[in-house]
Amino acid sequence: MDSGGLFHSIRSKRSFLCVGLDTDIKKIPQHLLEAEDPVFEFNRQIIDATYPYAVAYKPNVAFYEVKGAAGWRSLERTAAYIREKDPSLFVIADAKRGDIGNTSRLYARAFFEEMDVDALTVAPYMGHDSVGPFLEYPGKWVILLALTSNPGADDFQFFSDGRRHLFEQVLETAKGWASPDALMFVTGATRAEKLAGVRKIVPDHFLLVPGVGAQGGSLEEVARYGMNDRCGLLVNSSRGIIYAGGGRDFAEIAAAKAKELQEQMEQLLREKGIL
Amino acid sequence: MDSGGLFHSIRSKRSFLCVGLDTDIKKIPQHLLEAEDPVFEFNRQIIDATYPYAVAYKPNVAFYEVKGAAGWRSLERTAAYIREKDPSLFVIADAKRGDIGNTSRLYARAFFEEMDVDALTVAPYMGHDSVGPFLEYPGKWVILLALTSNPGADDFQFFSDGRRHLFEQVLETAKGWASPDALMFVTGATRAEKLAGVRKIVPDHFLLVPGVGAQGGSLEEVARYGMNDRCGLLVNSSRGIIYAGGGRDFAEIAAAKAKELQEQMEQLLREKGIL
Repeated sequence: MDSGGLFHSIRSKRSFLCVGLDTDIKKIPQHLLEAEDPVFEFNRQIIDATYPYAVAYKPNVAFYEVKGAAGWRSLERTAAYIREKDPSLFVIADAKRGDIGNTSRLYARAFFEEMDVDALTVAPYMGHDSVGPFLEYPGKWVILLALTSNPGADDFQFFSDGRRHLFEQVLETAKGWASPDALMFVTGATRAEKLAGVRKIVPDHFLLVPGVGAQGGSLEEVARYGMNDRCGLLVNSSRGIIYAGGGRDFAEIAAAKAKELQEQMEQLLREKGIL
Repeated sequence: MDSGGLFHSIRSKRSFLCVGLDTDIKKIPQHLLEAEDPVFEFNRQIIDATYPYAVAYKPNVAFYEVKGAAGWRSLERTAAYIREKDPSLFVIADAKRGDIGNTSRLYARAFFEEMDVDALTVAPYMGHDSVGPFLEYPGKWVILLALTSNPGADDFQFFSDGRRHLFEQVLETAKGWASPDALMFVTGATRAEKLAGVRKIVPDHFLLVPGVGAQGGSLEEVARYGMNDRCGLLVNSSRGIIYAGGGRDFAEIAAAKAKELQEQMEQLLREKGIL
């Protein structure tokens, strides 16, 4: 899928919502624990209930890896199920990988060939040859960390050479590596006002924005500072949707939460003249 | 294991060799492909042959993840086998993880509880709360990326505030997060002369040094610039050992290569007065 496909999907769903599948077996409703693969069963029901309101899903790989080989299988089944449910859905493996070239090549194979997701989050610290192998897959995307939503972002991302901060240098350097059809950036919602500066450096690239909801970011502010005339945003919500309910009606409640965000997003898209 | 335990192991093996298990099913000898788990079988024979000369093993997680759930199982079996072979061996999962706090906590559980390795490589970009959860396990280690051995290291690691480069800032900031008994740093051998500057910032921390051999780094230079009076080095070699032979005698040839490095290391330890 290229950025045109993503934009088409955003307009037809009237949403730029990404649902984060941070699925923790300790937090899913009791009655699912009898299923053969409770994590997959939870995801399946969440996807069935929320996909009318979402353009993307983002399984957080750590939550699967913690269950070893079995968790890896739940992740593979989840990625395949999203595809099957609605081929227009954009699947992001949130793995924050990045290593020397020959090793990144294997991570690329793992996620883009074996698992066949659309996009992978990648850490920039090791530079171009650590990111390049992920860019060799036509139609696949790198989502590069730039400005993250956690407190530790202050430690190094604001390191400055006097002209710009490290996260701005990452944007500036990496935008030369790939077009806005293959590269987007993680820019956290907890620092929404920074998105204005981000947009000066990368006016056309999509931004994946985590941190709305549980982490305290505001959707309106993200849209004000970050939206461009082809939307250019995927806003992620994880815990605020998938754990909104805790009983047998968890999927219904998740759908209501997703719909609420979709309606706010529709309004913001209208205000921008995109719908 | 603390740094005293590691130092003890280095003196008794007269080696600071780490063998990198970058095990690629496409590169292992033909006759192993009949085994039920060829990757594990390759690793088992490499470990059996080389452990007298090594203090550490470093499976590179990408090489296992590319095989999905089955690969994850080969990795778990490999980690357990190293433990069983010789409990003094130090097991490093080279995974370069790092995410917001609640997610890093899960990666920590995956590698330190489920897989029970001694150390995990971690990327610094997301700062303190992305690294902290890994430091909450007594006896376990974070190996934080500082200066990597790949060409892309130039892109961001040398970004400078006029006083220091980013990789130096990472060393300076992170050394406050944990003692030399719980934290070491990745500093590539392809820039051995930089190790003198690294040692000024972190005189006492262990350094994990990749890039000797296939990537072109020199062991003598690494020792000259990086060794401290408790050695303070783990030098990794992967392809130069495990793929030195390609036939039925691959393990024997790997052992000869590991022994060669061990003998050079013994000499360097003697010159430093450690043996």
